[in-house]
Formats: sequence, C-alpha cells, structure tokens
Amino acid sequence: MAGSRLWVSLLLAAAFVGWARALWPWPQYIKTSSRRYTLHPNTFQFRYDASSAAQPGCGVLDEAFRRYRHLLFGSRTGSGSTYSVYLVLTGKRHALEKKMLVVSVVTAECNLFPTLESAENYTLTINDDQCLLFSESVWGALRGLETFSQLIWRSAKGTFFINKTKIEDFPRFPHRGLLLDTSRHYLPLSSILDTLDVMAYNKLNVFHWHIVDDPSFPYESLTFPELTRKGSYNPVTHIYTVQDVKEVIEYARLRGIRVLAEFDTPGHTLSWGPGIPGLLTPCYSGAHPSGTFGPVNPILNNTYEFMSTFFLEISSVFPDFYLHLGGDEVDFTCWKSNPDIQGFMKKKGFGDFKQLESFYIQSLLDIVSAYDKGYVVWQEVFDNKVKVRPDTIIQVWREETPVHYAKEMELITKAGFRALLSAPWYLNRISYGPDWKDYYTVEPLDFDGTPEEKALVIGGEACMWGEYVDSSNLVPRLWPRGGAVAERLWSNKMISDTNFAYKRLSHFRCELLRRGVQAQPLNVGYCEQEFEQT
Amino acid sequence: MAGSRLWVSLLLAAAFVGWARALWPWPQYIKTSSRRYTLHPNTFQFRYDASSAAQPGCGVLDEAFRRYRHLLFGSRTGSGSTYSVYLVLTGKRHALEKKMLVVSVVTAECNLFPTLESAENYTLTINDDQCLLFSESVWGALRGLETFSQLIWRSAKGTFFINKTKIEDFPRFPHRGLLLDTSRHYLPLSSILDTLDVMAYNKLNVFHWHIVDDPSFPYESLTFPELTRKGSYNPVTHIYTVQDVKEVIEYARLRGIRVLAEFDTPGHTLSWGPGIPGLLTPCYSGAHPSGTFGPVNPILNNTYEFMSTFFLEISSVFPDFYLHLGGDEVDFTCWKSNPDIQGFMKKKGFGDFKQLESFYIQSLLDIVSAYDKGYVVWQEVFDNKVKVRPDTIIQVWREETPVHYAKEMELITKAGFRALLSAPWYLNRISYGPDWKDYYTVEPLDFDGTPEEKALVIGGEACMWGEYVDSSNLVPRLWPRGGAVAERLWSNKMISDTNFAYKRLSHFRCELLRRGVQAQPLNVGYCEQEFEQT
Repeated sequence: MAGSRLWVSLLLAAAFVGWARALWPWPQYIKTSSRRYTLHPNTFQFRYDASSAAQPGCGVLDEAFRRYRHLLFGSRTGSGSTYSVYLVLTGKRHALEKKMLVVSVVTAECNLFPTLESAENYTLTINDDQCLLFSESVWGALRGLETFSQLIWRSAKGTFFINKTKIEDFPRFPHRGLLLDTSRHYLPLSSILDTLDVMAYNKLNVFHWHIVDDPSFPYESLTFPELTRKGSYNPVTHIYTVQDVKEVIEYARLRGIRVLAEFDTPGHTLSWGPGIPGLLTPCYSGAHPSGTFGPVNPILNNTYEFMSTFFLEISSVFPDFYLHLGGDEVDFTCWKSNPDIQGFMKKKGFGDFKQLESFYIQSLLDIVSAYDKGYVVWQEVFDNKVKVRPDTIIQVWREETPVHYAKEMELITKAGFRALLSAPWYLNRISYGPDWKDYYTVEPLDFDGTPEEKALVIGGEACMWGEYVDSSNLVPRLWPRGGAVAERLWSNKMISDTNFAYKRLSHFRCELLRRGVQAQPLNVGYCEQEFEQT
Repeated sequence: MAGSRLWVSLLLAAAFVGWARALWPWPQYIKTSSRRYTLHPNTFQFRYDASSAAQPGCGVLDEAFRRYRHLLFGSRTGSGSTYSVYLVLTGKRHALEKKMLVVSVVTAECNLFPTLESAENYTLTINDDQCLLFSESVWGALRGLETFSQLIWRSAKGTFFINKTKIEDFPRFPHRGLLLDTSRHYLPLSSILDTLDVMAYNKLNVFHWHIVDDPSFPYESLTFPELTRKGSYNPVTHIYTVQDVKEVIEYARLRGIRVLAEFDTPGHTLSWGPGIPGLLTPCYSGAHPSGTFGPVNPILNNTYEFMSTFFLEISSVFPDFYLHLGGDEVDFTCWKSNPDIQGFMKKKGFGDFKQLESFYIQSLLDIVSAYDKGYVVWQEVFDNKVKVRPDTIIQVWREETPVHYAKEMELITKAGFRALLSAPWYLNRISYGPDWKDYYTVEPLDFDGTPEEKALVIGGEACMWGEYVDSSNLVPRLWPRGGAVAERLWSNKMISDTNFAYKRLSHFRCELLRRGVQAQPLNVGYCEQEFEQT
C-alpha cells in the first residue's frame, strides 16, 4: 500500500466519481479523468498480449472474454449490423475509439485451481496509447476484467464509453467467502451457479458450500450412496449428483472462485443417520434407547473407519487444499444420556464432554491430514481447546458468546491460528431497513493485537443459512447486501464512508439488475431497467 | 354462522385434514371423507348448470374456467393424447370419475364490477351424484373455483383426485385488501397483474393502489399530463398509461377484485409539484421562500379548482364506488413557515393547523362526494376531527400512537364510522423468522365494543410499502406472509391455531411455487417443485 500517493488518489476519485460510480468493490488505487473513449460493440475485442504467458486456448480467460463481451454488449455483439448503421447515422465521433482490451499475464495457470495463495492483483491502464490489463495470474486478470466491465458506461444515445483511467488493485484479504446452506433447503444447481456469477461480480473468491446438515443430505456419495438415498429430501430431485458437483467446481474455477466444501461433524449430522446405521449416538431415556439420535458416536471404531473412507472420497472430489470440517454446536445431552458413552469416558478418564468432543475431532483431523488436506473449523473447536495443527483456520461465527467476536479474533490470532470472520455477516438474519450498513461498517481487524497477529486474519465470509431461505428468496436477500461484505474484504480499510458506498452500491445494484440478477433495492428510487420476471 | 353444527365440522376437519391440507384460507364449513374421485385432465370440463343465471359468454366465468383448467392441468389440457395413453396403460380405475364441475349462479353480474356489497358465498358439493359449485353471484363462484382447485391433488403416479367434500363458505369480512405502493418504487405492470393472481388464490378482494406519493407520480393523467411527465421517475418507462390502468382494473375485475385507487393529499404530494406549479405550499426560511415545498396549498382557489378537475378524471377512470383520499402524516412545519398561510389562518380564526387540514380535507371530500363517490381515509382524518360523511371508511395504520390500534378501532366504531385495520399488517416491515404468526394471530375485533360497533369493521388490508421493496423482492416478501392476513379476514375467528395454519400454509406455499409464484419458505423443509428462475 503505497502511502500518501494512494490516499490522495482515493480522495480525488471519491470527489469526481461520476463515470466510476458503478465500481464495486472500490479499487485500491484509481486515477480517472473526464477524457473518454468510445467502444463499438460489434468490433470491440479482448486480445492476449504477445508477451502474455496465457494465450488463446487458455480456458479461464477465453471463457471470461466471452462472458464479458456478452455482459457488456449482449446480443449486440458480433457481426450484427444494427449498431454500425446507428453509429454511421449519428455520425460524430466524440472521442478516440478503443478497439480492444489487451490482456497480459505473467504466469498462466489456465488449467489449475485458484488457491488461498493465488495472486489477484492487476493493473488496468486506459489512456490514449493503451487499453491494457496486466496481472500476475489469470485470477488477477478475472478481477481486472470485472473492473473493466464496470468502467464502461452508456450515454443516453446508446454509445459505449470508457474514461481515461489508471487502476492498481489487489485484495485486502485473500479469503473472501460466501456460505450457502443446501441442507435446510435444497438449492437447485442453477441457484448455485447464478450465485457464483454474482460472487465474481463482487470479487468474492470462496464458495463455502455447507452442503449437508441435520435436515438433509443432498450430496451424492459414490462410496456411500445410501447417505443420499436415505438422507436427502428426495433422492431423485433434491440431490447434487457427481456431475453437479463437478459442474459447480469448474464453474467456480472459471470465475476464480475456490469451493470450500463443509461436511460438518460430529453435530449437525442427523441426516447421515438413516444411510449409515450405527454412525449416530443412540440417545437414552432412562435405561433404554429413546429411538432418537444425537451427534456422531465417537466411541466406535466403525465411526472412524467410516470417516476415513468417506473423507477419502471428499478429499478427491473437492480439489481445494482446504476442507471445512465443521465442529460447531455439539449438543452433549445425548452423549450424557448414553451409558456406553459414559463407560468410555470413564475408561479414558475424560472429566467433561468437551474432552470427548476433542477426542473425536482430533481423530478426524488426523484422518484428513493424512489425505494432504488443510482444514477450516468453526470456533468451538478452538474454544473447546481441541489440539489442532498450527495451520488450522478458525472461523468465528458467534457474535457475543463466549466472548464478543472481536475478542475471539484476538484470542485465536494470539494463539497463532489463522482466523476467518463471519459473526457480523449472517445475511440470513434480515431486519427492516438499510442493514447493509451494519455489514459494511464492520472492521475485521478492530481488535487488540500486534500487526503479526492481525496478519493472521485471512478474511471473512458472508453466511446465508437456510432456515428461512431457499431459491425463492435467496437472490434478493443476498444481493446487494452481500456486496457490503465483499467490499469490506477487498477494499482499503479507509474506504468506509457509507454515503460514498451508498451511491456506488445503488448504482451497482442497478447494474446487477441489468445483468439479470434479482438484487433488491437499498432505498427509495429506481433503476433504468427494473426487474421483471421472465 | 350456523352454530354447533359448524363447530363440530370444523374440528372434525382439522383432525383428518390430509387431502384438504392445501386449503387456504380455511372455509367456514367443510365436511370431507376418504372417498375419492378421479379427474382426467384431457376430458375434465367446467360447465354452466342449465338453471344458472350465467351461461357461456359470461366473461368472468369463461375466463376463470380457462385459468383454472390451466392451473390444474397446465399444458396437459385439451385433446392431447399423452395422458389418455398413460391412463390406458396404468389401467386401473380406482374410483368414480368426475367429468365436470357444474357451476350455477343465481344472479349474473358478468359485466359488472365487484363491490363492497358483493356476495361471495358459495357451496361446493362433491359426492357420488354431484360435482356442483353453487353461488349467489359470479364473485362467489370465483371463490369456489379457487377452493375447488385447492381440493384437487395428485397421487405419486400422477393421477388427479378429489375427495368427497361438502363446503359452505363465505367471508368473515367483506373488505380483504392488499396495498401496493408504486411511488417509492415503480412496479412494472406485470408485477401488479401477477399480484392480482395471487390475491385471488388467497381470496383477497381489494387491491388498494397507493399509486402516487412524494417520490414519483407514475399515474398518467389525461387532464394534467405534466403531472406524469414531470413527476414520474421516467415518463417513458416508469408510468402507468391509461391503457395500463384499464388493464389492471379489468384483470382485477375478472378475479373478483376491486381496485381502490389512492391519491393521497394534502401531504405525500411532492411529486405533484413539478407538474402543477403553485399547487404545493412554498416553505419559508425566515422572510423568504426557501425553494422547498410542503403539502398542498390549502388557501388558494386554484388548488380546489385543480382538485375538482383532477378528481373528476379519477372518479371516471376508477369504477369502484370508493376512492382512497389519504390524509395521513401532514407535516405542519412548512405551513407554519409561510406568512400567507398564517394570514389565512388568522382571517379564518383557525387556532391550530389541524383546523387548516380539516378545512382542506372537508373541501376535498365535498368535491369527491359531488362525483357520487364514497371514500376511505387514513386515521389522521378521524384523529384530527375532520367533519366527514357518516359513511366514510377510516383506515387504521398506526400501531401505538396516538393510541394502540385496538383502542383506535374502538373509538372509530363508537363514533359510528366503518373501520379498516392495517396497523398490525405492514408486510414491508420484515424481521427474522416466522413473523407470519404475528400477522395470523391478530384478532381485528379484539377491542371494547358492542356487536353493532364491531359490525362496523368491514375488514382490513395488508400493506406493502415501497421504501425497500420493488419488483425484485416484492413476491417473496408478500407471499405467503400476506396469506396469513388473508385467512384472518376470510376464515372463522376460531381458526387461529398456528400449528394447523403452519401445515396448511406450508402446503399452500408449495402450491404457489407450482403455480409459478416465487413464494418464500416458512421454515426448514422442501417442496416437490422448488423455485427456479426461468
């Protein structure tokens, strides 16, 4: 972050933001001017620079060029003549024409997956001589293409313009996630794919897929097909097939988005029970089983054999280095009621159930570690003092208990672990009015800690839990509210004025409508193009 | 309401609700059995009884028959062969077939508009001998057709069934409304029409069109085209043309829905200002006009001349006997600042601004009365003791001030006026979780009053104000939450158990999804057919 030069530019930009008013999230460094260039839909092209490491055939960028041509110019793209006629008739050329955006990347990772360590920085230079997007990686180029698309605007007469602009940009945090819960309600594949698109518009880069939970098990397991057959809402219509999962992962990859799959245990596993008899703890009512079940049974060898086989599959299906192993909200009531569990505790000398939980989780972490995976866990794993690998990522989700989330961030980073913040960003929890401001004004590093400790905060995630959310209300509840989190995680800490944000986010929301996203309004007003159900 | 027989049936029905579980709102009297009949999509017909006053050519019913055929059987309707083949192949006839629903009405009002006084009662008899819908009016027949459609269910094998059933039904309140605000956000015509459809599914019968307000004036006035030209968000894309308004009124009529147009004055009129110079009160800052404007200027003859002409148009455009004249939230600050207003007050001997407000409103009411219209006003008109006609309808919207809404209902009815309840039913005000229960458990007559006073409560309205709502989030916010209000206003007071309601409303919500309505979930679970953006 380049000190004073940066700040001057930020403030200047904020003052004459007119033609950059749709930029969301706001870039780290921007300098723009009133000098503008035209773009002609039927001739404009994206081109690889001769010196670029990626060249035609690079799937990630070829596909992105296609997408952005469509987003910018829609069906007007190509050899269509309507536009050329129009331009000939209106005649006057106000400005120089930009015939192409030249893209140059240093390293091509066209067939790889984005990782937590991927470089996302890029430089965009639009002036009389150049129209250039330069980045270290294809992932940075994707971010730059989105910014480029947001810089283009259309006059009342329909002419496309871009202003003279220089942008140097990079994310503040490398992990900028969104959690979707596909267990409490099943989300059709199309909802997930559409969400990935809008995540990319917001420069979010991690899709945290909370894929199974108590209510249903829609993930189609090849090794244990009974899990889905007996645990899904409907094993024909309400599941994610092997092919679906592959499609999500590839669709995400093409947008520079990692898929962080969560298989939460030992709690939140009721839907696993029917498919794997014996996996869950039988709860007792007095001396007899009550017929209900609790968390995963941590005292049986079978449990660990199952987990070993199951997570072998998961580790190979999901390419990301990290898996999310859950570990939240383990209810001890059922364990307490079960005499076999009590006996095991005695034998092991466990004084409280947190130790039993730790015993389970440590065994699970060992299994997953053996598959060369890293892991993310919910904060309870840390709170309950489970021994974890030093590279474990702890996700903070509880707002006030056992401590305020800022204090929790402090404790986690002081203990040397990396942290992810979610507590203030539960998008499912709606309230009346402009609550996006509450999400926007969160400062993730606002806790007591050394610079080294704060550097352990790798980002955060907006969470959309599914108790009251499915494909009918997901999109308007998610956007543009999720955008508030996206900018907080991408942009400079100093970009925190809600008036400046309101103007841009309102504009960005209209742009989302134009792109076909059913994003809800921030306040009274209108968009040129309103949402209409097709 | 037929005493003990009614109650026994209600309770019985609640016990074995299986095949009637989609009924929403719950009918006044229902008796149903496990005996069932098949319906064949390609042959089933709606037919007029020979003795019916309405016969083929009756637009309201002809159209309704078409709609319900489509809702029930979709594209499977008609001479298509797929279904017959299927039925032949599956072979077995489990039950008697019902080839038609015979419809009989006593009075045909096929080309008229529904009114506050329209009869909506109907009787539905499905037994071995009959499949008959009998009603006094076509409006009642519409309600019965909806109920009939909700009684039909489909087996896993795809066969359509209806059970032996007897229903005698009528609304508890004659005015069951929904307010949409098309000023704070413009709602595309399609959003309004789609809403009318879902209102009919819920047996709501008044569309309260809060068409203009401070932020925009989308109503296209023929007499004063400048109102729209200068007061709408966009005079080309964000207006309701004369044709649009006609379409809304006719679309509503065909569904037995009245259109209650609201042109709220003297406050909430900022968008009127640009089109009608001099209409609004110039606010003063010290001795000089500040350049801002307040409510309609009540001291000028021009104002009343304008209102006279304007409401002449409105009275003819909107056929309903009632107009809504607003009258809420008049801010006196601007009037107070204006020396001409002060002078007028002095001359008239008005001691406070409520008297000035009364002066304006009384003049307006006289104008509208002369056009043979009745009117509805917001509660402030009553609170501020404006002299109104005894047949005025007062709409209660304030939850706690000046008094709790139940007290306000008491005061209004004690004064002999008819009342409409809206205060507890502001659907725009969202909160996290199952807030439909709050709407559902409201009892509109739960105030101190004699039976005669309570009889003055003609119903209520759910309100969807537009500060944070437009076509992007309208539908999931409206449904099924609005259904809670709909059942409260239709069904017997005793139908108030939220568990019974939850089961039916969840099922009804799935039925709404099946009908293409983006209704949101009530809680964890799933529908056979989830919402997918097309």
